[in-house]
Amino acid sequence: MSLQIEPSLFPFFKPRGVVIVGASQNPTKLGFGLARNLLQSGYEGAVHFVNPKGGTLLERPIYPTIADVPQPADLAILLIPASLVPQGLIACGQRGIQAVIIASGGFRETGPAGAELEDECLRIAQDYNMRLIGPNCIGLLDTHLPLDTTFLPPPGPTPGAVAFISHSGAICAAVIDWARGQGFGLSQLVSLGNQIDVRETDVLGSVAADPHTRVITLYLEGVSDGRHFVRAAAQVTREKPVLALKVGRFASGQRAVASHTGALAGSEAAFEAAFRRAGVIRANTSEELFDWARALAWCKLPQGRRVAVLTNAGGPAVTAADALEAHGLQLADLSAETKNALRQFLPQAASVNNPVDLLAGASPEDFAHSLRHLLADEGVDSVIVIFPPPPMYAAGGIARAIIPIIYAAQKPVIAAVLGERMIQEAVEYFRAARVVEYRFPERAAAALAVLVQRAEYLASQPETPQRVVGVSPERVHHALRQHAGIEEQPGFLPQEVVEEMLTAYGMVTPPLRLAETAVSAAQLADEMGYPVALKVASPDIPHKSDVGGVRLNLLSATQVEAAFVEMMAQVETAVPAAHIAGIHVQRMIPQGQEVIVGAVQDPQFGPMVMFGSGGVEVEGLQDVTFALAPLTRAEAQAMLQRTWAGRKLQGFRNIPAADQDAVVDAILRLGQLVADFPQIQEIEINPLRVMQVGQGAFAVDARARVG
Amino acid sequence: MSLQIEPSLFPFFKPRGVVIVGASQNPTKLGFGLARNLLQSGYEGAVHFVNPKGGTLLERPIYPTIADVPQPADLAILLIPASLVPQGLIACGQRGIQAVIIASGGFRETGPAGAELEDECLRIAQDYNMRLIGPNCIGLLDTHLPLDTTFLPPPGPTPGAVAFISHSGAICAAVIDWARGQGFGLSQLVSLGNQIDVRETDVLGSVAADPHTRVITLYLEGVSDGRHFVRAAAQVTREKPVLALKVGRFASGQRAVASHTGALAGSEAAFEAAFRRAGVIRANTSEELFDWARALAWCKLPQGRRVAVLTNAGGPAVTAADALEAHGLQLADLSAETKNALRQFLPQAASVNNPVDLLAGASPEDFAHSLRHLLADEGVDSVIVIFPPPPMYAAGGIARAIIPIIYAAQKPVIAAVLGERMIQEAVEYFRAARVVEYRFPERAAAALAVLVQRAEYLASQPETPQRVVGVSPERVHHALRQHAGIEEQPGFLPQEVVEEMLTAYGMVTPPLRLAETAVSAAQLADEMGYPVALKVASPDIPHKSDVGGVRLNLLSATQVEAAFVEMMAQVETAVPAAHIAGIHVQRMIPQGQEVIVGAVQDPQFGPMVMFGSGGVEVEGLQDVTFALAPLTRAEAQAMLQRTWAGRKLQGFRNIPAADQDAVVDAILRLGQLVADFPQIQEIEINPLRVMQVGQGAFAVDARARVG
Repeated sequence: MSLQIEPSLFPFFKPRGVVIVGASQNPTKLGFGLARNLLQSGYEGAVHFVNPKGGTLLERPIYPTIADVPQPADLAILLIPASLVPQGLIACGQRGIQAVIIASGGFRETGPAGAELEDECLRIAQDYNMRLIGPNCIGLLDTHLPLDTTFLPPPGPTPGAVAFISHSGAICAAVIDWARGQGFGLSQLVSLGNQIDVRETDVLGSVAADPHTRVITLYLEGVSDGRHFVRAAAQVTREKPVLALKVGRFASGQRAVASHTGALAGSEAAFEAAFRRAGVIRANTSEELFDWARALAWCKLPQGRRVAVLTNAGGPAVTAADALEAHGLQLADLSAETKNALRQFLPQAASVNNPVDLLAGASPEDFAHSLRHLLADEGVDSVIVIFPPPPMYAAGGIARAIIPIIYAAQKPVIAAVLGERMIQEAVEYFRAARVVEYRFPERAAAALAVLVQRAEYLASQPETPQRVVGVSPERVHHALRQHAGIEEQPGFLPQEVVEEMLTAYGMVTPPLRLAETAVSAAQLADEMGYPVALKVASPDIPHKSDVGGVRLNLLSATQVEAAFVEMMAQVETAVPAAHIAGIHVQRMIPQGQEVIVGAVQDPQFGPMVMFGSGGVEVEGLQDVTFALAPLTRAEAQAMLQRTWAGRKLQGFRNIPAADQDAVVDAILRLGQLVADFPQIQEIEINPLRVMQVGQGAFAVDARARVG
Repeated sequence: MSLQIEPSLFPFFKPRGVVIVGASQNPTKLGFGLARNLLQSGYEGAVHFVNPKGGTLLERPIYPTIADVPQPADLAILLIPASLVPQGLIACGQRGIQAVIIASGGFRETGPAGAELEDECLRIAQDYNMRLIGPNCIGLLDTHLPLDTTFLPPPGPTPGAVAFISHSGAICAAVIDWARGQGFGLSQLVSLGNQIDVRETDVLGSVAADPHTRVITLYLEGVSDGRHFVRAAAQVTREKPVLALKVGRFASGQRAVASHTGALAGSEAAFEAAFRRAGVIRANTSEELFDWARALAWCKLPQGRRVAVLTNAGGPAVTAADALEAHGLQLADLSAETKNALRQFLPQAASVNNPVDLLAGASPEDFAHSLRHLLADEGVDSVIVIFPPPPMYAAGGIARAIIPIIYAAQKPVIAAVLGERMIQEAVEYFRAARVVEYRFPERAAAALAVLVQRAEYLASQPETPQRVVGVSPERVHHALRQHAGIEEQPGFLPQEVVEEMLTAYGMVTPPLRLAETAVSAAQLADEMGYPVALKVASPDIPHKSDVGGVRLNLLSATQVEAAFVEMMAQVETAVPAAHIAGIHVQRMIPQGQEVIVGAVQDPQFGPMVMFGSGGVEVEGLQDVTFALAPLTRAEAQAMLQRTWAGRKLQGFRNIPAADQDAVVDAILRLGQLVADFPQIQEIEINPLRVMQVGQGAFAVDARARVG
């Protein structure tokens, strides 16, 4: 196990003595609740209370100042007015305390004055080499140590295997209560508040290092340093599953950018890509977060996607089968042996095909025998057992009968016990035995799909992106420098510079020459050979075809000259302010499938590549996918699989198969380019025209923006 | 209120006397449970038990035969071995009982012998003019009448406003238990079993006619007569909301058909279209079905999509805002007046922008005052109140403080009370007051979206499809007859027949002539003018371009002759068995946007039209939508809105706006054609090339199959 508590955070997770600054004798105050929780938690280290009023609290002395507190004391919780926090921190620092939770509110969330106060706190922390959690947070809770530095109303959570790290303090009380209601325990809970120092990424590894923690759940409003988060999470997910609920999906999609790639990226696509890279499983709702955490904490992982459904009720089994298929799982084909064995003791009307329907009268023994046979079938990777309140037997009896079998099994079994009150006894048996149960078949199917996802992730070989060979960063540097002042002046690059960058990174562009007059355009075309295309050359016109700035398939010098004159007039009318350098003449290249390959710098996650259906309709079709750059060949291939544009490259009906390797190569090379040159804000090849297998792909049109 | 109980079903819903045939003295038998439930239900009519053994049961006599039962007796429940059911039915018929529930299993679900037994039962029922529910069902339950003919273990459901009609008997016990657990009551529950006589559509109107029922929920495995269901449901939904969970999504998608339209239809698309036409709201999971039913039963309907969120917890409010946006709702912009009023009493750090965050310390009075102001804001159509267990106050206090305001409001208010056990008191207050509450913010948002959907449906004008004018069924009849034997011989129709049918229904096709030799092809091309296209003419080749059977943009007689020879050779090699009538010569038509318009006969719902992105990629892109045919102009326009192909017709970037009216027209006409000619199994225009606004659309290629 390579996971370890980050040394500077050690006093938060394993304090020898805790000081509560702002402990209160008044039971209606949070400062009382905090003192009470810490004592009631059973924390075995030293507990100290500080309040200038002095006195005693819960049979213990209250020290008037932090300086008065005896040894040991390595973690302080401040629950005092915001304005007093800086001097409290200084006192902690002087006392040698290097870990402080600022529970108090009244900081950045209240306006500029509060933000200044935060900055002051951070300076003090740096002076004393001190780590801070908060402010404006609930603190930290560990059910196994045990330790509870929160002021939440009791009871606290029961000990368990699920850790929760949260940007929202307000949700913590709900999480503790949900956990209790759903019958699972928590290992640790960390509320991070305004995160002036310690952030989600900092605690992730330390929380994962707790041997009691089997699953880490995250409630994220964002991440502070995208790449750092991805690295830290990727390390954790190889050992323990991480589930994340990322909120604030819609707030950030407002960035106005010129390229398709930029408009499509937004932070949602970046988070998808980042979670995928890091092996983090994304929950879409709060309910899924904890549904799935329970399953990951308690279940064995399946060896495959083949599921057997065992039930006394046909209808809900169909619902479950629907949900399984929707999640990409499949109903197992039962072996003849299994079916025969089931027929031996089941009534004739029972179905021994999957879903196995025992009928309403099924006894607990029927469930137990059937489950044993299903688990023994080599074609079955997991089982869902579904039952509504049975008309003839107690639901609890079924639970009791199958729990020992589930325990002994090497395959996961998930229960869907439909109903609420009449099945309560069964639910309690299952929970006591740590068998995962849900009230609805669809939720059981979704949880099983997450187990499969986790198993497949662990089975995949972790790979590190390799540097792409045959690229020349020097040529790109040169091209950018040559275009004088380009690095200072943000905007779209001239076509020649873009072509030079692509060529330097090993991509093939059709020959392109700049013509300033109609006559020279015709001469260039004669030299290249026909057919040719004309494209207006202007850094001020990113979408050339929108303004009549493109002519295709010109077959003769006469056509080229006429098109040149006509285009110039048209473009000058459409965009009078644009600086037009001339018109590019380009040899037309053969027909082929057309895709888009792009790349952007995401503000949170840095360089990312995009791939998908291109053309002018890219925004309408939304058939695109993103990945962090640079990336592995396997990641680039997976991008093809996730899109229709990519799957179509294998050939479809009368569309011949195209050169998939060339596309993968273009994705890898463009990813390397934006990773090497962070000043390239966006670059987009649209279309990349893909020839037949072995014939490569051409960057027919491209543009790039620096900033 | 136009809803009425269907007269022949009256004894099921309002029986004067109920006979239980198969009542048992043995408390472990279902026949005992049935007798017990009927008596305990409080049913006020006569109750009779029949069992050949005689004796007494629950202080009442058991009659040895049905003939012995005294008056009144108009509903019988049979719970006897399947083999005895026919003679039981005869006895009921002779006794004058015209409504029978066959609760017994052992029929079609057990194999061919059971199916024969069902047929026999149906014949007997017809002989005696008797209606049957079942067999293999749970029966019928009415909490208000009251009446309970089920054998489910007690307690039964509490009286309420939600009716449940089910194809699955097994799920009924779970539904009753879910309802109890979620704190809502049921009005009626009808389990239909094998449906040899009475089906879902038959009972829908009768159940909806119950004045206690405010919402009807359906658990459907399919429908017996699609169009009948749509008509019946459409009538109900104008008065009361209908929610449906349609299961068996994946089982039926296996039909192998040649055209794109057929392959894409499947029964899922048909159900989507049917539910849309009927105003039925589709739930995706069992949980949604009852989440939404509660909201529809208890909430007022919102006047619009603008939602205010009121909370003491920022994190869950962000989650709710995400979910609202995902469902197409929006956060309301609060008026300056509202914000000022909130600022008067809230702490400075509180947020008075929507979501309104009162902070963790908020009192019940803060919630109440704030809610009053939000409801008074004219820019707010509905409110979601979200709170986790508050640290300083009891959750129940918040519920008590806001319930009277919710009662008085003309706008819907939904509560998301996060947690489980610590918020139990609040939940119970809400349930007692019939205020809808959920444990998770996302579920509250989804339920609110359903209220909006319902309000918008009721605000829409119901329209009936009008017969399309300017169509000539006679010409189609003639064309079909002329093609000798065509109506008997299923298969693809010759191109000329397809063109004639389209023309007869007012669609424009480019001129098309059949050439049998290369020379005559060139002559025809000379007559038409260039450019022309050549297309192989064979009813055996539905996908012409797949086998090299299409050549486009031919510019001269020489090119036409060469292409003819080459094509013939290529096609004969590719499809040696095909009968080739020659090659069609067609004048090429101008460029334009290309879409697909198709139509099929769905086995359940009859004629349906399809619209979307066409070309060879139609199956890959999946940008298509379906509607029942014939359809209204508004429905056809909505099809354009649901697809990218349709939205693009408005113009997009350098793609000019195209003739949307012409496309709508083509959809209406093709819908009329398949509605008029059920023998046309599939017809598909791919592509329909759409000219600029006012210039119409051309059916460039089309094919049709009869069967």
